[in-house]
Parts: sequence; C-alpha cells; structure tokens
Amino acid sequence: MSVNRRRFLGAALGAAIPAGVSGAPAGQPRFKADLFTPALLLDLDVFESNVKRMADHYRQAGIGHRPHAKTHKCPEIARRQVSAGALGVCLATVPEAEAMAAAGIRGLLLTSPIVEPRKIDRVVQLNRLGNEVMLAVGHAREVQLLGEAAATSSTTIDVLIDLDIGDRRTGILPGPPALELARQIGTYRFLRLRGLQAYAGHASHVVGFDHRRKVSREAMARAVETKELLARSGFAAVILSGGSTGTYNIDSDIAGVTELQVGSYIFMDVDYRRIGGQSGAVYTDFQPSLSVLTTVVSTSHADRVTVDAGTKALATDVPHRPEARGRPDLVYSRAGDEFGTLSSTAGPLPALGDRLEFIVPHCDPTVNLYDRIYALRGDRVEDVWPILARKENVKDGSR
Amino acid sequence: MSVNRRRFLGAALGAAIPAGVSGAPAGQPRFKADLFTPALLLDLDVFESNVKRMADHYRQAGIGHRPHAKTHKCPEIARRQVSAGALGVCLATVPEAEAMAAAGIRGLLLTSPIVEPRKIDRVVQLNRLGNEVMLAVGHAREVQLLGEAAATSSTTIDVLIDLDIGDRRTGILPGPPALELARQIGTYRFLRLRGLQAYAGHASHVVGFDHRRKVSREAMARAVETKELLARSGFAAVILSGGSTGTYNIDSDIAGVTELQVGSYIFMDVDYRRIGGQSGAVYTDFQPSLSVLTTVVSTSHADRVTVDAGTKALATDVPHRPEARGRPDLVYSRAGDEFGTLSSTAGPLPALGDRLEFIVPHCDPTVNLYDRIYALRGDRVEDVWPILARKENVKDGSR
Repeated sequence: MSVNRRRFLGAALGAAIPAGVSGAPAGQPRFKADLFTPALLLDLDVFESNVKRMADHYRQAGIGHRPHAKTHKCPEIARRQVSAGALGVCLATVPEAEAMAAAGIRGLLLTSPIVEPRKIDRVVQLNRLGNEVMLAVGHAREVQLLGEAAATSSTTIDVLIDLDIGDRRTGILPGPPALELARQIGTYRFLRLRGLQAYAGHASHVVGFDHRRKVSREAMARAVETKELLARSGFAAVILSGGSTGTYNIDSDIAGVTELQVGSYIFMDVDYRRIGGQSGAVYTDFQPSLSVLTTVVSTSHADRVTVDAGTKALATDVPHRPEARGRPDLVYSRAGDEFGTLSSTAGPLPALGDRLEFIVPHCDPTVNLYDRIYALRGDRVEDVWPILARKENVKDGSR
Repeated sequence: MSVNRRRFLGAALGAAIPAGVSGAPAGQPRFKADLFTPALLLDLDVFESNVKRMADHYRQAGIGHRPHAKTHKCPEIARRQVSAGALGVCLATVPEAEAMAAAGIRGLLLTSPIVEPRKIDRVVQLNRLGNEVMLAVGHAREVQLLGEAAATSSTTIDVLIDLDIGDRRTGILPGPPALELARQIGTYRFLRLRGLQAYAGHASHVVGFDHRRKVSREAMARAVETKELLARSGFAAVILSGGSTGTYNIDSDIAGVTELQVGSYIFMDVDYRRIGGQSGAVYTDFQPSLSVLTTVVSTSHADRVTVDAGTKALATDVPHRPEARGRPDLVYSRAGDEFGTLSSTAGPLPALGDRLEFIVPHCDPTVNLYDRIYALRGDRVEDVWPILARKENVKDGSR
C-alpha cells in the first residue's frame, strides 16, 4: 500500500503541460512520465552510439553494411543507418520494402524468397518506379517467375543467389546447384546477377566468441567457395552479403565477404547479451537501447507483484526473461497475455503504480508487437517513430 | 521442382477479377486465392456455429455471458456476440474499451486493474459520454483514484471487486480483505458496487474434464463465499463474473455465478483442443475457426520445406505446434521470426508455392499480431474485419 502519491501527481502534471513547446510535435507526450504503459522506449544516446560503432567498424574494415530492417520496420531508423554509412537496408517482406521505398530509402535488399506471383509483381513495380530493390532468389521457380515479370514490364532487376550454408531454411545449396541457378538467371534479359547472399542463422547466437567464429567461418567458407566457382565460370558475382550482429566482427575478417546484414545491434536484447563477446561472458560491443515501460498494477501478495506487460507486450520466442533496468534482483515470470509477475532475490518489491523498464528478451518480434517507438533523450520524448510494415503482406494503403 | 503451374495461374487470375462485384467492398480480395500470405483467416460457418453454441448453452443454463474481447479486439465480432445474446464484452485494456465503445458496443467490463491516473481518466470519460464501462478493482489505491476521478466529473461508475481466487496475478484476496474493499467503495458517492469478478486462470487449461472441474470449483467456491459474506454485510453485490472457455460448462453449474467471461471459444486453438472435453481427449465442444494461411517458399531439402510464417505470424507462448489443416502428417518447427519448416511423418512434402492453413497454437496473442481478419465463406472472402486496439495504451487517434 506504500504508494508514492507524488509519483502519481507527477505523471498527472506531466500530462497537463501543454504540448508542442519542445521539439516534439503538438499533441505528443513530452516526457517519459507522460507515456501510457506498456510502451516501447528507445534510449537515443545508446542507439546513436550503437549505430555509429557499427558504421565505424565497417568503415575501418573497408567493407559495407546493409542493416536488416526486419528488426525495426521503422523508416526513421533506416534513414539514420544510411546517414551513418550503410549501403541501404535489408527487408524480410514485400510490405517492408514498400514502406522503406515510400520513405525514400535506397539500396534495398529483399532477403526472403518471394514465390507468390502477385507479390513478385509488387517488387517489380517498386523497381519500375525507380526504387532499387534487389532480391535474393534460391529456386529455379523464383527465377522463372521473376524473370518473366521483369520482362513483361521491361524492368531490370538485380538479384543475389540465396545460398543455404547450413541454416536449412531458405536458399539453394552451394556449389554446382548455385552455379546452375546463375546460368538460369543469365537466360533472362531483365535479371542481373549481382552476387550471393549467405546467412548463417545457426552461427549468430552461438555462445562463446571462439566457438561462434568457428561455426560462422565454416559456414561462410561454403559461400566464398561458391563465389569463386561463379567467378571461374565467368559470372561477375561481386556481392557476398551475410552475417549478423553476433558475427559482425567475425565475418568482416573473411576475404570475399563484401557486406554484412547486421540487425539487432541497434537495440540489443537479452538473447544477444548472453552469447558473450570477444573479451567476456556478456556481449557488450553494443548496449541495450530498447526497453518496454511497464506499470505495477497488483500487489496483493508479499512474494510478488504484477506488471502490465505479458506475452502481447514482450515476445516469448526465446527462453530468456526480460531484465528490469536498475533492478537486477527482480525476476520476471510470464503471467499470461496481459501480465507478468516479479519476485525479488533481494530488496523490497516495487509498489503499486511504480514504473519499471525491461530490456527485452528478443528485439525483433517484440518491436513487431508495437505501432510506435518513443525515442527518448534522457527523460524527454524527443520523437515518436511509427513502426510500419507488420508481418501481414497486405497492400491496401492502410499501413 | 514439381510446381503446380495452374495453382500459380489461378492465384494470378483471381487477382485480376474486378472487385466490388460480390458483397465485399471494392478493392478487397474476393477469394482466398487472392490473399497474400501470411494472412489470418476465419471460417465463418465454424465461427458462427461456435458463437451460437455458447449463447445457447448460457440461455439454457439461465445465466449470462460477457465474452472476453481481448481474444479478438474486433468490434464486428463483439457485435455478433452481443446479437447472439451476450451481455456485452470484457476488455483487458483501456484502448480495447475505447475501440468497442466507439463501435457502439454496450455492456463493457474492463477486467484488468487500472492504476495510471490518466488512464483512469480515460475510462471515466468513456462513462461520462454515456458508455457503460464497468471496472474490476482489486486494491484500495485503485478505488481511491477511481472514486476521486468519478467525483471530479460527477460520473457514476459501476465496479466489481476483482478477487484473487488462486491465480496470484491480479485481484484482492477473498473474504475479509474483499469486504474491507467493499466498505471503502461505499464511501465514494460516485462508485456503485455491482458485484465480484473471479478469474481462475489456473483452472482454464487443466487437462482432463474431471480434474479441471475440481480445480475450478475449488477456486470459484472462494468467490461464492465472498459473495455471501458481502450479502450478509449488507452489500447488494449481485454480479459474479468469471470463467473461461475451458470451464464454460463447469462454472455455469455453480450457484451464485451470474455471468461467464468466455473468450477463445469463437476461434479455438491447439492449446485448448488438448485439454480434453467432457467425453474425450480432444476438446471438441467448439471447432477451430481461425487459421493462418501460409505459402511454401523454399524446398531445397528432401526432408523439409519452409513456409513464410514464423514467430511474427504465429505466437509462441505455448509449447504446442501449429497444425496444418488436412495434413496431420506435417510437423511444423519454428525457424526464426519469418519462417517455419515442415517435415512429414508420412506422405510427400508440399511443393514450392503450395499454400497451407495452420490452426494456431494460441489464438489471443496470434490475433494480436495482425491488423485484419479475412472472414471466409468457403473460399469466398465475405468480409475483412479490422483488429483494433493493440496492446499499446496509446491514445492519439491513430488506431
């Protein structure tokens, strides 16, 4: 029952301050205390540091990076990544590509196989309108559909061959099958083979730097060999795109790799932190900038309190628990779709109405639960960024 | 490589048929084959049968039902539930209440504790404008904030006391603590105590009907005792609201229970099917009406194929796998945020471009991933229903 009355009053007063005085648009919340919970927060100082650190790394390494926008689905973040030096952004879905193209982002790479003919038409249309949307293709049927659609609209489309280097999920097998696909691509006048995509999803979250390096190098070696096979066979397949936040400084040392598809580094999450860095058990190369703001809404028991963020507010696809900022003693447990409960290994439990921020277990699917990110500078809401292009592949103008 | 050319052509032709000819609004897809994947599908025949069966059950039992709209967040579905005989709908969040009120749905019950003062103001405002939004309160602080806000706007608010009957998540403890809260409510002129809410979340998914009945009856007995205590103490607390799809025909036999908060019965899911019914290992009282439509997008391996629905398209909070309609031999495994892989225990794997529908592991958080439900009559898209009010508690008019 020890509720902090001033805290409640502070929140109420925050809301009463007229908006539009600061940089934030009129009607937007001005302070963190103004936000309703649950809310998705971004610490801008940390985010900007992450973006710069990754860009600096690749500038020094002399290779490119094309961050994966499936992580954020947010044109404003893509814009900042490109401003920092990225070649463009990768996309997992056609609506993501459409949203980024509409926001004026160039250098787009669609990394997922597209086999629905009308979805292929949407990508061809993007290119016809002058957007540069490269596709990764991994099957003769995809090449055929794309080649025919490109020819129908007389639009040249850049493609990468998507290689399966051990992930067993998408892509064609390396070596001769990939060479055969390159030859097929060559038969379509409006398809232009630019290189290879090789994503080793099974390497990105390997715990321990040395082990992770071993797994990633073995996987990427298959891609490099295939790149050489294509070169010997007369194909100018220059690009080799792959990698992840977990292997950003592993794959950049592999000769032949030209650009990296890093994604989570901008936000970080519990899942990535526990893979370990080059010099420690916690991966600290990038710091957590993303969190979910919650409110304690029930305190009926001595051993636990309840917060207003459950599986609809914090994605559950990894086993790790959300971590409360500044309260390492608090242990979060899922309590259904709407709630989580907190116990403590030491120290008093928070009081009813207290607000807590949680570092998220896995950033990508958590961001996918929200429509906007509150970009904070300290406790000030500097901006509110819409999250566009949810998983649904609808095209009706409503999103 | 055995791709069905006609299947692809069929989809392309489907798209070419001018829209607006059938009942569906112009520009909407007319047939299932027109939909991009992944997409959330509702089989209207099954859905309508589920809605009717539940309404008939409570009509015969002589008690009410107020279905939980956190399951669907869809005003059109709420409208149909009320038309079938529901008292109104329950809501888990203030945006859900606002969305349903805006759609003209009456008889709203907000089942979650609301402790943010500005969020309480939003609920008071809804009531001030003539919407009937009852709240469940479980803490003296909630009562105080709500009582003061109601007085400030001279708006009478109906409340239930939220009881914790074993869920250990929200609500006040039964017996004397609840009576004390009733007395406190009585001190606020603009609060009107209408009864109790008692949700036994720990009972809803107990496997085996007899065991489930035992757990639910034990839990609900505490609520009934508290209701009697309040009556003896002079409080006219008439309502006792609780229950779930898993206990719909258990709790309706308990004297004192006046209305049930059933939710998942409209859609059903794998999680509920495995709890078992009154006469079998599979809970068949209601049939699965909800599914996710997917496309096979990669077939590079003999032992598996990949579909375009991963953790962003099928919620992962329960351990059960999505089940492919008509293909019980297919075993779905998660393969990241964008993909799932399928193996088969018998029979050939689907081909590239094939489309498959999956019954979802857990309906509520899966619906929360989508912006619209395609309501199908057979293979025809009869309507497209927006899913409103995501978890975010924003109020900026954008949703």
